[in-house]
Amino acid sequence: MKSGQSVMRIAMLASLLIVAPLQPAGAQTAAPVSGGPVDPALMQDLVIANRVLTDLNVIDGFGHVSMRHPTDPNRYLMGRSVAPALVVADDIMEYDLDSNPVDAKGRASFLERFIHGEIYKARPDIKAIVHTHSPGVIPFSVSSVPLRPVFHLGAFLSPEVPVFEIRDPGGMTNMLVSNAQLGKALAATLGDRNVALMRGHGSVVVAATIPMVVFRAHYSNVNAQLQMQAMSLGGPVTFMAPEESQKTLGVIDQIHGRAWDLWKRAALEKMTSK
Amino acid sequence: MKSGQSVMRIAMLASLLIVAPLQPAGAQTAAPVSGGPVDPALMQDLVIANRVLTDLNVIDGFGHVSMRHPTDPNRYLMGRSVAPALVVADDIMEYDLDSNPVDAKGRASFLERFIHGEIYKARPDIKAIVHTHSPGVIPFSVSSVPLRPVFHLGAFLSPEVPVFEIRDPGGMTNMLVSNAQLGKALAATLGDRNVALMRGHGSVVVAATIPMVVFRAHYSNVNAQLQMQAMSLGGPVTFMAPEESQKTLGVIDQIHGRAWDLWKRAALEKMTSK
Amino acid sequence: MKSGQSVMRIAMLASLLIVAPLQPAGAQTAAPVSGGPVDPALMQDLVIANRVLTDLNVIDGFGHVSMRHPTDPNRYLMGRSVAPALVVADDIMEYDLDSNPVDAKGRASFLERFIHGEIYKARPDIKAIVHTHSPGVIPFSVSSVPLRPVFHLGAFLSPEVPVFEIRDPGGMTNMLVSNAQLGKALAATLGDRNVALMRGHGSVVVAATIPMVVFRAHYSNVNAQLQMQAMSLGGPVTFMAPEESQKTLGVIDQIHGRAWDLWKRAALEKMTSK
Amino acid sequence: MKSGQSVMRIAMLASLLIVAPLQPAGAQTAAPVSGGPVDPALMQDLVIANRVLTDLNVIDGFGHVSMRHPTDPNRYLMGRSVAPALVVADDIMEYDLDSNPVDAKGRASFLERFIHGEIYKARPDIKAIVHTHSPGVIPFSVSSVPLRPVFHLGAFLSPEVPVFEIRDPGGMTNMLVSNAQLGKALAATLGDRNVALMRGHGSVVVAATIPMVVFRAHYSNVNAQLQMQAMSLGGPVTFMAPEESQKTLGVIDQIHGRAWDLWKRAALEKMTSK
Repeated sequence: MKSGQSVMRIAMLASLLIVAPLQPAGAQTAAPVSGGPVDPALMQDLVIANRVLTDLNVIDGFGHVSMRHPTDPNRYLMGRSVAPALVVADDIMEYDLDSNPVDAKGRASFLERFIHGEIYKARPDIKAIVHTHSPGVIPFSVSSVPLRPVFHLGAFLSPEVPVFEIRDPGGMTNMLVSNAQLGKALAATLGDRNVALMRGHGSVVVAATIPMVVFRAHYSNVNAQLQMQAMSLGGPVTFMAPEESQKTLGVIDQIHGRAWDLWKRAALEKMTSK
Repeated sequence: MKSGQSVMRIAMLASLLIVAPLQPAGAQTAAPVSGGPVDPALMQDLVIANRVLTDLNVIDGFGHVSMRHPTDPNRYLMGRSVAPALVVADDIMEYDLDSNPVDAKGRASFLERFIHGEIYKARPDIKAIVHTHSPGVIPFSVSSVPLRPVFHLGAFLSPEVPVFEIRDPGGMTNMLVSNAQLGKALAATLGDRNVALMRGHGSVVVAATIPMVVFRAHYSNVNAQLQMQAMSLGGPVTFMAPEESQKTLGVIDQIHGRAWDLWKRAALEKMTSK
Repeated sequence: MKSGQSVMRIAMLASLLIVAPLQPAGAQTAAPVSGGPVDPALMQDLVIANRVLTDLNVIDGFGHVSMRHPTDPNRYLMGRSVAPALVVADDIMEYDLDSNPVDAKGRASFLERFIHGEIYKARPDIKAIVHTHSPGVIPFSVSSVPLRPVFHLGAFLSPEVPVFEIRDPGGMTNMLVSNAQLGKALAATLGDRNVALMRGHGSVVVAATIPMVVFRAHYSNVNAQLQMQAMSLGGPVTFMAPEESQKTLGVIDQIHGRAWDLWKRAALEKMTSK
Repeated sequence: MKSGQSVMRIAMLASLLIVAPLQPAGAQTAAPVSGGPVDPALMQDLVIANRVLTDLNVIDGFGHVSMRHPTDPNRYLMGRSVAPALVVADDIMEYDLDSNPVDAKGRASFLERFIHGEIYKARPDIKAIVHTHSPGVIPFSVSSVPLRPVFHLGAFLSPEVPVFEIRDPGGMTNMLVSNAQLGKALAATLGDRNVALMRGHGSVVVAATIPMVVFRAHYSNVNAQLQMQAMSLGGPVTFMAPEESQKTLGVIDQIHGRAWDLWKRAALEKMTSK
């Protein structure tokens, strides 16, 4: 896995050589135009995902979740800079893939929105992204021990979970993926996987839908805690075989909605009881 | 214990040689007939068990609990494919022991219902079954360290907790016990024990009543966590002696209803307060 | 500490040689007379202690708390055999120190009430007793590593926490302290300490008041968890010095009421909001 | 770090030689005068901080939070001796920097108020202080393994977290920082850092504002738990580089209000729903 990471980092550094000179975010002369209105049910799912991830202790006052614009693949939607548990529909902002807001209306943007914009650029298959500081994954982000699928609901962690070392593209930073260059580097580390860890910081999780990205963010955290405990027992640990993981992805496709229904219902009950 | 497992696996493989050729679930020409009406109090206990196990963090959006039909031993009852926390009486479906639904009424069945059907076939003494992904037991399912009774409320883990390695009967699978062949293999691994772990997946827990199966599922999880912590201290650990465990089963028979009363009451309060 | 335990066990075995032949609990010809009415505020504290210990996860569906009768030192008061979270004033039963109920009124008694009766006999200074299966202490009950005071609020664990090995007086048992002989043996192991662990079972905690026994039961559990974590770091651990512990007992005397006020208030709010 | 601590302790001992002979707290002939009225919004933030830290499990029935008087730097404000979760505005007492109350009105003071007074004296830059027994930090207070920043939100733990060994200034004590001499020694150990651990006791956390001190107290606890888990994996751990931590302080300045807004809102909702 280490050599795979090295290859990946070389690929990433090479890709940085051919990008156009970076412009500061404020250099645009005009705000991007909107991708158009969004189905309210989808918008509600984005709001709900913020609440669900908080209830699951995957995110706390920090962390964010976004979705690609359903009708314009060059736009994405994400809450303003507020704790996810407090997000309501009016907090959802629209961005182009350079992470410029379409119409900020005075709302502040997340410093790390470039995580989202650059991954949406690099991964046309991805429609939803979560960035977490979830407690299970951070220990693996700073350890030489890789996070690996230890049970079937963690199968999406196969074939590997790369670790983004921000020192590689950025040297000594403030740890934030706060510009396009760092966002591109993170996207390169992620490659075609579903999850990447960010050293000393957290994780980024991607999927084709909101329910799936929430599922993956939660079970990344659960799998990490189970792996730590299994390893603490001292004996050898049997991880999922790659072929088992590959086959189990189909199961997760089929059943993840069951968890989403439960989580969404609980979040809606909490929202309406206040 | 390892050699016991080997013997068991041979027995299991032998048993597979004499079963009739498997038929796909949809091959029946007629649905099975019902075992008849069920006492509403028992049906409520089955619904409540779903809620209780969720409240105890033994199951989450997944996992399931079933009971044998009280008047027809060739039928069993289990919720439709929905998160256990959401199960109501109308979600309870009836199956024959080949896990064909009596009258699905458009409701989807759990992919892994064969766990239940095949164990009810193999174990006439068993009236209730829980399948979990509970966090305490999964580390033991992938470790060479066996789960053992570390305190008196875990006495039912004696004489041993076998681990079902799905690769033995199934090779590289999607990890689900999703047909009769795998269900039979799991039942053979379980043998006459109360709990079997499923490698990289979870556990199956059996008992003669719903309150007892809930007790065993919960205290399997608790015992596992206590054992992990006791082992982490580094010194030798004194487990329950087999004779102690055997004697303690009588205590558990006598006192488990006290816990069930508490759990049931709390679950009912939550159901009615919504 | 090991040699201290050996001395203690010898003392305990010696004490068993001079007790009168044991009578079965049912052999009394008449029920004991009551010690008289009890101040309702004290009785409420006993009820509340059951709720508080449940809220603190020190006890679950099992475990019990008792107090010595405030005006008759030869009687004690304890809930009937029901989950502590459900105890109300009418569940409180009175016992003599042989653990015979004064007037059962059809209520079932805890099988392990002899823990309480025999300790009240052996320890005139003690007015309140808690028996727990709390998750922090059980790992130490089965490990060769002793539970020791790791922070100031655990000072009452000094000078040592003996472990009651029920095999010493009872051989292969059902693990319950279910008769006077075993109760006496446990009391002998406890000696003049504040806490004794029960191997593969839990703990017994004693004090001169209900608020203090609840404090000690809770912070035994907290201290145990802190000690496990401190030891897991791998370096040497600095425990409280005996002299520090001795001096800190005065602090705990002075401040424990602050915690009791908080816990009691929260428990009362929950009771009245239902 | 050890040698740094030695230097620090020498500095601290030297500083003790030049202080005036200590007077017992009761020796003043007149109570200090008040620093004047306090902005009710700030006072509310102090009350809320007590609730927030309880909700975050950073403090329990014990622990305390104070703020420097906003218009008189020689006075500070802190709740009376009551569990933090119960503090209301009328419980807030005013003290001079020798920790004498301005007007006790019969309210009892915390025995350890000298922690606050002496740090406010030694650190003019500090406006808010929290004293905790939080479960994550206590294991590091008794271990030879230092607490270090393992993720970006723990950057304020850089360059080091000193451990206050009360035996150095006090010998065998009751573990409390219960007079000015011990308070001064703790302030000397803290030096110009943001957090100091107190051996076998807890931590003290300082900042320029209430939201920041709450942030630091909480993420000290979180960082400690993450570090324990990362170390338990067995491989080498990559900590934050000092330069990374330094740069990340600016990020925390910028974003910590987002967490405070969330926590404050939740605490206010709980207060008003009762």
